Amino acid sequence: MTGPRIDLRSDTVTTPTERMRRAMHEAVVGDDVYAEDPTVSELQREAADLLGFEAGLFMPSGTMTNQVAIAVHTQRGQEVICPEGSHIYEWELGMMATFSGVVPRFVPAPRGVPDPDDVRRAIRRSIHQSPSGMISLEDTHNKAGGTVLPLEVLAGVRDVAEQEGLPLHLDGARMMNAAAAQGVRPSDIARHFHSVSLCLSKGLGAPVGSVLLGSRDFIGAAHRYRKMMGGGMRQAGILAAAGLIALREGPALLQEDHRRARELAVTLKEAGYDVDLETVQTNMIYATLPDAQTRVNAWAARGLLASALDHDRVRFVLHHQITDDLLAHAQDIIRS
Amino acid sequence: MTGPRIDLRSDTVTTPTERMRRAMHEAVVGDDVYAEDPTVSELQREAADLLGFEAGLFMPSGTMTNQVAIAVHTQRGQEVICPEGSHIYEWELGMMATFSGVVPRFVPAPRGVPDPDDVRRAIRRSIHQSPSGMISLEDTHNKAGGTVLPLEVLAGVRDVAEQEGLPLHLDGARMMNAAAAQGVRPSDIARHFHSVSLCLSKGLGAPVGSVLLGSRDFIGAAHRYRKMMGGGMRQAGILAAAGLIALREGPALLQEDHRRARELAVTLKEAGYDVDLETVQTNMIYATLPDAQTRVNAWAARGLLASALDHDRVRFVLHHQITDDLLAHAQDIIRS
Amino acid sequence: MTGPRIDLRSDTVTTPTERMRRAMHEAVVGDDVYAEDPTVSELQREAADLLGFEAGLFMPSGTMTNQVAIAVHTQRGQEVICPEGSHIYEWELGMMATFSGVVPRFVPAPRGVPDPDDVRRAIRRSIHQSPSGMISLEDTHNKAGGTVLPLEVLAGVRDVAEQEGLPLHLDGARMMNAAAAQGVRPSDIARHFHSVSLCLSKGLGAPVGSVLLGSRDFIGAAHRYRKMMGGGMRQAGILAAAGLIALREGPALLQEDHRRARELAVTLKEAGYDVDLETVQTNMIYATLPDAQTRVNAWAARGLLASALDHDRVRFVLHHQITDDLLAHAQDIIRS
Amino acid sequence: MTGPRIDLRSDTVTTPTERMRRAMHEAVVGDDVYAEDPTVSELQREAADLLGFEAGLFMPSGTMTNQVAIAVHTQRGQEVICPEGSHIYEWELGMMATFSGVVPRFVPAPRGVPDPDDVRRAIRRSIHQSPSGMISLEDTHNKAGGTVLPLEVLAGVRDVAEQEGLPLHLDGARMMNAAAAQGVRPSDIARHFHSVSLCLSKGLGAPVGSVLLGSRDFIGAAHRYRKMMGGGMRQAGILAAAGLIALREGPALLQEDHRRARELAVTLKEAGYDVDLETVQTNMIYATLPDAQTRVNAWAARGLLASALDHDRVRFVLHHQITDDLLAHAQDIIRS
Repeated sequence: MTGPRIDLRSDTVTTPTERMRRAMHEAVVGDDVYAEDPTVSELQREAADLLGFEAGLFMPSGTMTNQVAIAVHTQRGQEVICPEGSHIYEWELGMMATFSGVVPRFVPAPRGVPDPDDVRRAIRRSIHQSPSGMISLEDTHNKAGGTVLPLEVLAGVRDVAEQEGLPLHLDGARMMNAAAAQGVRPSDIARHFHSVSLCLSKGLGAPVGSVLLGSRDFIGAAHRYRKMMGGGMRQAGILAAAGLIALREGPALLQEDHRRARELAVTLKEAGYDVDLETVQTNMIYATLPDAQTRVNAWAARGLLASALDHDRVRFVLHHQITDDLLAHAQDIIRS
Repeated sequence: MTGPRIDLRSDTVTTPTERMRRAMHEAVVGDDVYAEDPTVSELQREAADLLGFEAGLFMPSGTMTNQVAIAVHTQRGQEVICPEGSHIYEWELGMMATFSGVVPRFVPAPRGVPDPDDVRRAIRRSIHQSPSGMISLEDTHNKAGGTVLPLEVLAGVRDVAEQEGLPLHLDGARMMNAAAAQGVRPSDIARHFHSVSLCLSKGLGAPVGSVLLGSRDFIGAAHRYRKMMGGGMRQAGILAAAGLIALREGPALLQEDHRRARELAVTLKEAGYDVDLETVQTNMIYATLPDAQTRVNAWAARGLLASALDHDRVRFVLHHQITDDLLAHAQDIIRS
Repeated sequence: MTGPRIDLRSDTVTTPTERMRRAMHEAVVGDDVYAEDPTVSELQREAADLLGFEAGLFMPSGTMTNQVAIAVHTQRGQEVICPEGSHIYEWELGMMATFSGVVPRFVPAPRGVPDPDDVRRAIRRSIHQSPSGMISLEDTHNKAGGTVLPLEVLAGVRDVAEQEGLPLHLDGARMMNAAAAQGVRPSDIARHFHSVSLCLSKGLGAPVGSVLLGSRDFIGAAHRYRKMMGGGMRQAGILAAAGLIALREGPALLQEDHRRARELAVTLKEAGYDVDLETVQTNMIYATLPDAQTRVNAWAARGLLASALDHDRVRFVLHHQITDDLLAHAQDIIRS
Repeated sequence: MTGPRIDLRSDTVTTPTERMRRAMHEAVVGDDVYAEDPTVSELQREAADLLGFEAGLFMPSGTMTNQVAIAVHTQRGQEVICPEGSHIYEWELGMMATFSGVVPRFVPAPRGVPDPDDVRRAIRRSIHQSPSGMISLEDTHNKAGGTVLPLEVLAGVRDVAEQEGLPLHLDGARMMNAAAAQGVRPSDIARHFHSVSLCLSKGLGAPVGSVLLGSRDFIGAAHRYRKMMGGGMRQAGILAAAGLIALREGPALLQEDHRRARELAVTLKEAGYDVDLETVQTNMIYATLPDAQTRVNAWAARGLLASALDHDRVRFVLHHQITDDLLAHAQDIIRS
């Protein structure tokens, strides 16, 4: 392979910036298991303020923030209503079952967007069935293409949740992309939810970590489950220091990622690949093609890394370390 | 309400026949927790022989036989591949998650019948996903209308299971109906599976109980899980005595149930209800209608009991205590 | 082996009496999954009244009634405070962990009797530890020798439970023996608890079944967990009919069992076996001896069945089908 | 409060050294979820080599490494045989139950040291009991005072494990202290076990992280459970870089911690506190005293931090950031 490595497998592959490295080097830290790490506390505070919640809790991954939220919101044997293709089911390896003892109940979600009426119809109340325990949305919806949930859909599902007395969680791993794509404040999205999971290590660029947000009581209960899963970290302020930079500086970079994704999608389409441009709303592109793995291997031999998913789908994800130059390289490889 | 009560809510509502009551009265029993109840042993032996397995285990319900099978076949965090609408998910209240720590992975099943290729595509092997632990079919498929799975579909799924090294379970709660409808021996169905759950208290008419069948090793492992769930019963021979009658005499009555179901379905259709006659293959009829509960209540006031399911669906189930006279009554009520 | 078989392994080995068999033969039954079995309802009502609770729920075993109670009273990750040697831990195969996700926290219990102060000290509140979820006692305490918990101990533990806001459950599998031994009403014991599990198939002599008692809300929640474990039985009135006889007629027979246990204990002691007579308070005798299994096998060859437990302990349990004649036989075998 | 803060609550409170901070600043990192972080790989390799295992896996905490090991070694409903007071039970919040569905089975452990014969006696094989799934030791044993398990005890328990076919795990959070105290190589301890959990963030001084060691197959299976618990971290090389320093440089500092612990223990004893000097074998001191919390608060007001545990016990832990000067301060405060 000659030429640069262009890693479009995920926005999780970014390496920390020099500013992040410096922040980690200088971080004031303490033992966060005793809630004494000031940098972690600052990150939790700042994330909570940004999204309009009372409190936050830092954890090593988005899987953990989501699964802790599920544990707090549900009882054993209940159902988690979620759009088909949700990350909490597809990529979190049955943890909802093994830890929380709950099963998913899917609602249709064309291009990742559920209909609030379908959410309502998915609610179970019969004593012969598993009762509904919570509703969980995902914005942007990864498997559907990084698609954005319109604010009125969020409001509609929130109304259902309130009328039915069900907690409503957001897997907001990439909610900053959703905010950027719609030109709204993050809190305009977050305010519809009882809890939000926000990843710092995806589009925002931090090396490690996610924050779970909610009410003070919710976060109090989340502490215990985080500890059970082994997410209590000691001088976690090292990671939180980079996370703070990501939270402050990352969102401003996302619109460029979205523009580049759009450009790459057009290139793919022109090169004859099956891409639904309607779904290219943020930093992802999914192309459908036979024999995806072979195609991905061929690109990889030339330095362009993408992910083969589900037998016949390839995913490309833009992120802040893909410059216009690297994008142009990628386009050349795809065209040839 | 005048006239007789015609209970078509389920084939589980039958009361024990006089022969069953006499058998229970005279049953030789022992403490089955010590494996010393001869009547239970006889039932287990006879069911195993009938379906072609090495061993059987008696339990208080089909939920338990299915969930014990899932526990034996899987490890925590795996997926159970099953047709959409499967009883193990829809009506067993999240037990697969709470006890076994596993999640369902659905395959499409038009009229209850999955395509073996879809089963194959549902298998997960990536280290980033929940691995497949087993495949479970349901024959007849309750939620799809009591529909029969063609033997070639069973063979096709069995081939997938063997090639992929996955255990294949049958929720055969009503597999005797499937055998009767196809005019085949029960073992012609059962031989495709590593384990089968057979209910005695549905179409076969016993008051209580199901039998789990499998290899000697499988049943050995099932013992422990049965005990954990509280299914170890003492002088269970009382129930097994009725179960033996059901197993011996029940199957011969099923074809009459199927004929009556067909007749009732036609009556419903003629009365203007939306019934897919293609799905009326055994002892069930599902009609789709708006405001199902109101309709069901009106019928109930006149003595005809049916089940309102899923907001807009009504289910009728025939069984050996619905005579032609009672059927005629039911038809009169529906027509008027 | 010549002579009669004298089965003292457990009080679960009794076979149903002719009155029970007749009651089963004539029982009016319905589908209890729809709560329509009048005999089950009658049993639940009568057991609740007897013990002073609002409601009851019939299940196939004491393991299920106990484990359902644990599920209702706790949340995942909590501790169940219980005396060492409790049946819910020793003989219920980890179900508290697998289903409810909780661990035991033991308190010392010399001769089966815990000190309320030790119960208080066992309570955990630190955020770094598993929080206490409930307290569970066992009366009579099986593993300690069928020993009785004095009423003042029950009152003392109840005070702790109330002060600490913890639910208090009784594994009352043999609470009727405890009542008989103290000459008190069953409700004098039961009134200290939020829930009680009562077995019909041990000293009371029914073939199958236990009843869980509690408030209406508690039993409402218990329904769901019973169904999850597969304990929803159809025409369970068959079993309940025998259970009603056991509940009505069984308690009067227990004092004779206790007298015979005392006599057998003295015989064992005189024959040189190590028996703590202070623990022989109800229908059980535990003897400590080296090589227990060999001794038990030798007795079994002569028709006397006892249980070898824990390497060096043998248990004898009296019940209503051990007459004075059979007792005399057993004494002869032990002496020789 | 005047004077320096002397934090003896735990050896987890250390802050990263300048060398660690520099290593983190310069670390070469990648996405470890794709197994592409070279620094993480180096740490895993080096830890495995040091302890004599085929492979290692980095995780955010010792709770996670222990609980993942339990998940890999056991099946639902089994028992984990462990010394009383084990961290996996006392301080890991029921995770063994909630995630793995297993319960603890305790063996006596005076001063933290179990008798191999007691371990053997704790094994369960009866089909009426929860079967033994694994054995887990803890060296040093935290709750017993940071006590060391003699190598012959390890060998004895290993023999039991091998004869009985049970996996043997070491919670080696502080096994480097055990090695230092005995003057043996870490591999002399580790070689007796099928898996070892080693903490970098306790005595060794890293900010965050533990490593799980075992065979290649074991670590392969551990990957899935780590991911389920949310322990898959992206650019974890940042933490691993500090972990490598801790692993290389930390062990040499432990003997000084042990000397200082001994000196502080003598001071406590001379000041009238109840300290069992026989248990002061590594870097911990436990003192028993009434009203522990009040005493701890008084010391804290003067800058000396210790942990009040279990109502009447206070724990002091030495670590590399407690110099002789700080120790002298602490001694002054205790004496006055």
